[in-house]
Amino acid sequence: MKSKALVLIKSRRSIRKFKRKAIPKSIIRKILEAGRWAPSGLNNQPWRFMVLEKEKRAALCKFSRYGHIIKGSDKAILVFIDKNASYNYEKDLMAIGACIQNMLLYVHSQGLGACWLGEILNQRKEIKRLLKIPTPLELEAVIALGYPLKSHEPTPRKSLKNLIIK
Amino acid sequence: MKSKALVLIKSRRSIRKFKRKAIPKSIIRKILEAGRWAPSGLNNQPWRFMVLEKEKRAALCKFSRYGHIIKGSDKAILVFIDKNASYNYEKDLMAIGACIQNMLLYVHSQGLGACWLGEILNQRKEIKRLLKIPTPLELEAVIALGYPLKSHEPTPRKSLKNLIIK
Repeated sequence: MKSKALVLIKSRRSIRKFKRKAIPKSIIRKILEAGRWAPSGLNNQPWRFMVLEKEKRAALCKFSRYGHIIKGSDKAILVFIDKNASYNYEKDLMAIGACIQNMLLYVHSQGLGACWLGEILNQRKEIKRLLKIPTPLELEAVIALGYPLKSHEPTPRKSLKNLIIK
Repeated sequence: MKSKALVLIKSRRSIRKFKRKAIPKSIIRKILEAGRWAPSGLNNQPWRFMVLEKEKRAALCKFSRYGHIIKGSDKAILVFIDKNASYNYEKDLMAIGACIQNMLLYVHSQGLGACWLGEILNQRKEIKRLLKIPTPLELEAVIALGYPLKSHEPTPRKSLKNLIIK
């Protein structure tokens, strides 16, 4: 593990095409379990999850220009912020980012693939209505999941030199 | 790795007390490297880093009621958002959360410890002035780092039952 964490982190990719193969429920549970253990300010754990199976996922597709990724996925996890659990929106969003990253890393460690979708938030009100989401919950991300159709090249990253402030 | 990612994720703790032992520069570089490989919307990589050594870290302590954690740490990484690289503040904050979580997990995988400090953001303007941070950068987190003085019990988490929306 000591040397492998960085390998896991660096080899993770956004996966947009998936095999027609179902992810076992036990794995979905462990993905959520990974998210559940993220750190949050005052340990307020503002994240909430909804796992969407085939039928409702199809309805979701029309709300995004990346709907085909959701359509081709095996399952989708919707990540919400619970505004009743929120103490600082800025910090809560970072905590939710940490929660999502835990899930993405666990997904990758299992040979599964995921795509973190953000553009769909433009239609969050309509999605909330469709899925009858309780008022205090706000959609923050959709994660499309499945077995990757193929491996992917990395997207480029800025060099450390351009990220470090002296 | 396959089964160990979840163990790594679940065994990470906030570490608030550290040994008097220096973290090699090569490890600091790899921590930032872990952060650098986080996902971000449109791959905009809005995170910027500053590594604070002893002297400037001492000056930082007075800006937080948790200053003693910074004071007792070996190094601190300041994480900024670059507003010039920002495309959507909400999504950028989640990306920065993912970046921080990558760093925390890598830190933990190396037997090091970290504490993600947020309360200090109350004094972000003063810190910016002190450290002469360029205008487009805004402080989003301080991560105190060092070798853990002892192991820690987990903080509680809500059960999955309370996080999943049917």
